[in-house]
Amino acid sequence: MVVKVYGPAYACPKRVLACLIEKGIQFEAVPVDLIKGEHRSPEYLKLQPFGVLPVIQDGDYILYESRAIMRYYAEKYKSQGTDLLGKNVEERGLVEQWLEVEAQNYHPPIYDLTIHILFASALGFPADEKIIKESEEKIAKVLDVYEERLSKSKYLAGDFFSLADLSHLPFTQYLVGPMNREHMISSRKHVSRWWNEISNRPSWKKVLQL
Amino acid sequence: MVVKVYGPAYACPKRVLACLIEKGIQFEAVPVDLIKGEHRSPEYLKLQPFGVLPVIQDGDYILYESRAIMRYYAEKYKSQGTDLLGKNVEERGLVEQWLEVEAQNYHPPIYDLTIHILFASALGFPADEKIIKESEEKIAKVLDVYEERLSKSKYLAGDFFSLADLSHLPFTQYLVGPMNREHMISSRKHVSRWWNEISNRPSWKKVLQL
Repeated sequence: MVVKVYGPAYACPKRVLACLIEKGIQFEAVPVDLIKGEHRSPEYLKLQPFGVLPVIQDGDYILYESRAIMRYYAEKYKSQGTDLLGKNVEERGLVEQWLEVEAQNYHPPIYDLTIHILFASALGFPADEKIIKESEEKIAKVLDVYEERLSKSKYLAGDFFSLADLSHLPFTQYLVGPMNREHMISSRKHVSRWWNEISNRPSWKKVLQL
Repeated sequence: MVVKVYGPAYACPKRVLACLIEKGIQFEAVPVDLIKGEHRSPEYLKLQPFGVLPVIQDGDYILYESRAIMRYYAEKYKSQGTDLLGKNVEERGLVEQWLEVEAQNYHPPIYDLTIHILFASALGFPADEKIIKESEEKIAKVLDVYEERLSKSKYLAGDFFSLADLSHLPFTQYLVGPMNREHMISSRKHVSRWWNEISNRPSWKKVLQL
């Protein structure tokens, strides 16, 4: 059964694609055009009632929220491809902790920064300089905690690559690329080493080529 | 080993307490006074580098982020007490989906509403009426999706109580109690039935008595 992934051009679905590639799971990408409002169509809302990306269809099984989808495949195919959850319940606890840190502390400001720097004019509102400044400050504080953590372990949850690291890829790629904030990563020695490692994984390079 | 839970008086740690009670796990509550700034003390920051609640200590094992802690204990003691993760990987996928919906869609506006209605004066800033109105509108939209979902299943992830339901307890308790927004729940038939069921669980009543 090929997994259908909706909205492959956008950041949150890219998390899911990277995860599926790491696990060696075949997928079919189904484009969703947000500019045309396809995420508000009755057909899409039947799959994802909040009208956001991504959602997957795997036979009869429909699932949304990128981090929930990643957990599902990482657990269902635990022993296939890269293990992304740690080797025991204590390691998985730390994967969950850092995945929550990504979702609760890192994602909100980097999402706001992305919207105001990259998409404000396309979405028809002026970029808010105050939000940009506050978001940068919040991201910097989170990266300071990562710097300390990554001085003691190779990856966020320990010495193994996991969903917690993977989940940072799409928006950090915007940060170092089109948002011209590469210095926020390169000025932090351990974060920089970590970013080089995770962003050079074949799975992520493949996602960027899609 | 008794689990130490820091900050039992506050909403996010209450999620963890309800989970531990459902699982029949003994714990010791360690008060943290946010007004006195105890969450900014060097000792606390060693346990939780972001300076937020909760964090648990279980022997040498330290874990933070309420939803990560709940997942850890729900998985570690899967067959003890109430099963909160579903009986197979597909059910767990749906638990994770609705837990993410709680974290990403429900929590941010209900947190903002709580801060501005209940804590603004204590924290020394004026309540922002615009934020209050926007937060209420966002919560209402999420509850409309829940109403549809709960017309088809007893609980959010299916016909079983799970972490996804449990995670809604602390802030919804503020909503129907001190925030005087009980009508947001009672005006929705299925949400109202669901709230009555989950808020009357012995575990939650015990948390409220602590």
